[in-house]
This record gives sequence, structure tokens and C-alpha cells, in this order.
Amino acid sequence: MSALPMVVPEPGLPTSVTIYEVGPRDGLQNESVAVPTATKAAFVQRLLAAGLPIVEATSFVHPKWVPQLADAAELMTGLTAELGDRARELPVLVPNERGLDRAVELGMRHVAVFASATETFASKNLNRTLASQFEMFVPTVARAREQGMDVRGYVSMCFGDPWEGAVPVEQVVSVGVRLLELGVGQLSLGDTIGVATAGHVRALVAAFREAGVPTDRLALHFHDTYGQALTNVHAGLQAGVTTYDASAGGLGGCPYAKSATGNLATEDLVWFLTGLGIEHGVDLGSVVATSAWMAEQLGRPSPSAVVRALSGSDS
Amino acid sequence: MSALPMVVPEPGLPTSVTIYEVGPRDGLQNESVAVPTATKAAFVQRLLAAGLPIVEATSFVHPKWVPQLADAAELMTGLTAELGDRARELPVLVPNERGLDRAVELGMRHVAVFASATETFASKNLNRTLASQFEMFVPTVARAREQGMDVRGYVSMCFGDPWEGAVPVEQVVSVGVRLLELGVGQLSLGDTIGVATAGHVRALVAAFREAGVPTDRLALHFHDTYGQALTNVHAGLQAGVTTYDASAGGLGGCPYAKSATGNLATEDLVWFLTGLGIEHGVDLGSVVATSAWMAEQLGRPSPSAVVRALSGSDS
Repeated sequence: MSALPMVVPEPGLPTSVTIYEVGPRDGLQNESVAVPTATKAAFVQRLLAAGLPIVEATSFVHPKWVPQLADAAELMTGLTAELGDRARELPVLVPNERGLDRAVELGMRHVAVFASATETFASKNLNRTLASQFEMFVPTVARAREQGMDVRGYVSMCFGDPWEGAVPVEQVVSVGVRLLELGVGQLSLGDTIGVATAGHVRALVAAFREAGVPTDRLALHFHDTYGQALTNVHAGLQAGVTTYDASAGGLGGCPYAKSATGNLATEDLVWFLTGLGIEHGVDLGSVVATSAWMAEQLGRPSPSAVVRALSGSDS
Repeated sequence: MSALPMVVPEPGLPTSVTIYEVGPRDGLQNESVAVPTATKAAFVQRLLAAGLPIVEATSFVHPKWVPQLADAAELMTGLTAELGDRARELPVLVPNERGLDRAVELGMRHVAVFASATETFASKNLNRTLASQFEMFVPTVARAREQGMDVRGYVSMCFGDPWEGAVPVEQVVSVGVRLLELGVGQLSLGDTIGVATAGHVRALVAAFREAGVPTDRLALHFHDTYGQALTNVHAGLQAGVTTYDASAGGLGGCPYAKSATGNLATEDLVWFLTGLGIEHGVDLGSVVATSAWMAEQLGRPSPSAVVRALSGSDS
């Protein structure tokens, strides 16, 4: 069987898309198996070699909260020794000023902060209210910008929340606009529990546009919990969004949602974009091989349909 | 977590869709476990009770080729005893005149024939050439029509073929138009190995329209091998197609393609349509419960993302 889909473009879609790879950070932080630092470093390097233009490498979060990424400084020091400035260009998550201090110390150039679109998740994940979370972001973003860093703003629970249900688009726009006002360059709108469907994606992107936010400031971050991630990308493309988060092999998930499957798999996204003739710069075979290798490290099969089909690792 | 997605319609899509359930036939014929006739009968009845408007029940194929469905007559006799005329309305596959004889004997009202869009699959699956397969369909369809039966025409390998690669849309249109000329009422255009992407779906539907085939004569039948099935439905909806084949729990697959995962799961389709506010008449919880029960009978978890998420049967 051919290892690539046939190319049949759809009129009106963007001709080129940026895949923002989150596997080493968002993927591994939600895996129960602890991965050795050297394996993480190899993972990041293999993803870069596969042509992924942006690879978020780790999170400078307190090890008490995310023990899987306790080796963030060690990982980035090692990667910098091997890759030099290329490693300093890799984005890292900084939950707060302490995290930013560590990123600055290592000379990182791109950081990301993590906000919530809902009251309950702000409380559970950040120990803040929806309003007071910004007190944490104001100095973090300001200081990062003073250092000349680019700052990405993750907004989680943008479509639904396990406790509050449907999340009004106005509420998401309000959180996003506030982050942009603080100096965030790009918003990553996350469907943390995977409940978005195509019409909802279209409506949310339209609401940002109506609020004066250009579509090129938006990235979309989908989870495949209900199998909807790629149709949501399709809706996003039709709405003009050109940056999509994805996780090699579909690594990760949401630790707060029972049975949640992981992030949209990079390979499934690459297959989809390739079929539509949309440029992405990624070598599918290399990412599949990387994810098959990582699945072995983790001791479980990849949830990615493309990885399973092409690596023949399922029945 | 809510057991239903939020409803946000997408402008321009159909307001109502017919789900054509193929699990008992296309699903079970590709499962290695032999399912007892009573279990199949219960499966069909549970699917009908869940609101599925059309449930293809079995295939009157020679038991030598599909031993899993060797009990077709017994199954339909039992269902007729329980459901009366309702059972006779259930479509059944008839590969040839001998199959049709058995369907006529049991008073069935809806039959389906199975064609190939490619030379190689016609040879391997039907032992015919692309051209000579029609010699088999001419008398089968004519006699079925004389009996007042509706005839559906499956066209397999409509997008790609494991041996021939990309299948030209003109070739698919040619096979489909020929079946319609013979008296077939509805075509089910199958992506047997799961290689379709959204632009290709759009192009194939457009090619049929240009050949003078009204879109309401078309159904689309997707496999989720590369995770693309739902985006392909999305493209189909945007092209105006209102009938989609699906298999409860994602049962089945293509026995000719290594690692092929199964049909689009009915539950994933129902979730998607529900999110878009498109009427389908199916009770999601009932189908999920049915698929979870069938997964137990088969001794393996359902590949449907929605079934796994809602029945909590994965890790």
C-alpha cells in the first residue's frame, strides 16, 4: 500500500500550514511512564530532523505538579550542548515567574503560558480564579517580552469543560483578548476534553475575528477523545487558521477526563494535509518511525491511526 | 462529563442525514470471531431499537467465501418470526443470482450488490474483470427489480486500491453510472482501504454531479484506517450528500489491507452530526451500550473513540 495519500486539493484552503509539535511537552507530561532524559532529547531531535518546524520541548513547571518533566533544565542544557542556538529556539512552557527565571537562565527565546477559559479549571489547574489568573501572567509575560522572548498563550477548555459543560465563545474570546493585550503573540485555543465539533470551531474563530483578532494570531489545539480532532482541523482550515498543535503518535491526554484519548496525532494531521496538497514540510515516514520507537519506550501501542496502519503494529 | 457534544450548526450543511448501518453485515463479515446467530439477531434488534433507520442484516454470499455469515437464512428467518415485515425491509447483500434466489425465497424487499471500481479488486474479490462484473449484475438487478425490490450498489475501492494506487474519479463514475443504468437505486461509494481525504471526496461527488447523477442517489462509505473517515463525511456533507454508511462500534475492516482498521464507527458519526445539529434519529447511548456489549462478545475493545470514551473501557 502507498505510504502517502493521493493529493486532491480543496479550493479555498490555506496553501501552507505550520504544525506546532507538542509531543515532548504536552504528550509526555500526561504519560504515566517516566521517560529518561536522554530518550527525551533523542525524541526532540528526531522530531526536528523529521521537519517539524516548531517542537515544544518541555515545561519549567514545579516537579511536584508534573514529575514527568522534572528534568526540564537538564534536558535543555543537553539539547543546547548538541544543537546550540537551535535548542534555544525551542519553545518551553513557563507556568509562572519562577518558571520564566529558569528559562531565562538557559537562554531560551520562546516561552508559553497556560491559561484557562473556565472558572473551575482555573481553580483546579492553576489554583486561581478566572479573573485572578492574569495576575500571574502580567509579570511573566511582561518580563519575557522585556527579554525579547516570543510568548505563546495556551487557553484551555475553550469548547467544553467537564464541570461547567459548554463554554460560551464570548468567555473564551475575553480570556484570549486579555492575553494578547498583555503581550502574548499567539493564542493556542485548546479543546482540552475533545468535545468540539466543526460548527463550534467555525463559530469560535469567527468570534475572535469579530473581536478584531486577526486569524493569524490563532492556533488550534484539538484532542481526539471523540474522534473529532481532524474534522475540527478541517473546519479551522476553512476558517483560515494556519497553525495546528499536534503530538507525535498522539501522545498524551487530559489527566482530568476519564478515558480521554490524547492530542491529535501529528501523523494523522500530516496525512490529512498531504492529501489536501497543503504544505507542511514534514516527512511522514520519519515521524511514524519516531512514534513507533517512542511507543516501544512507553510500552504501549500508539493511538495514532496512521502510525498503526503504516508501522503494522496492530492486528 | 456530558454524554453529548454541544450543538453548533454549520451554515449550508444538510439538516438531516440517513445513517445506513452496516455493522451486522460488513462489520461481522470481517471479524475473525464467529458470532452465534442468536447474538446477531439481538445485535440487529438492538440497533433498530436505538433508532438506526436502515440496518443491513447479512449477506447471502456462499459460505465458502464468508463463513462468518453462513447462517444468513437462519438469521433472517428468525428475525422475520420476531419482527414480521420489519425484518423483510432490512437490506441484505446478494453477490449474484443465487444469493438473490435465497433473498426472494425469504421475502426480502431490499438487496445490495457489490461492485469494484478497479480491475485488480474485481479480479481478486469477484473473479471477474472490471467490465465483465456487469454480466453478473445485469440479471441480478433486473430480476430484483421485477420483484419490486430496491437495489443498492456498493462500489468498492473508489479512492485508492492497494495494488493500483490512486483510482481516477472518471473510472468510479463510469462504474457507478453503469450500475444506475441497470436499475440500481442508490450507490454506496466505498473507500475500502481508507485513503480518501477531504478534497478527493469533494472531487468525486462533483464528478458524479457533472455526469448527471443527482447527489441524493449517492451514499458515502468510509473506513478509518488513517483516521480520515469523519473529515471525509464533513466534505461529503458540504458537497450535499445525505446518506452515510457506518458500523456500530467500528466493527469490521478490509481483509485485504494489512493493519486496516474498520468502518467509520456509527457512534463517532452520531457524535459529529449531533454537534452540528444535524438530525439522525439515533440514540447515542443505546448504540454505545450495544457496541460495548458486542465488543464483549468479540472479546476485544471497540475501536470507536466515542465508545471508548463513554463506556470507559480503555485505560
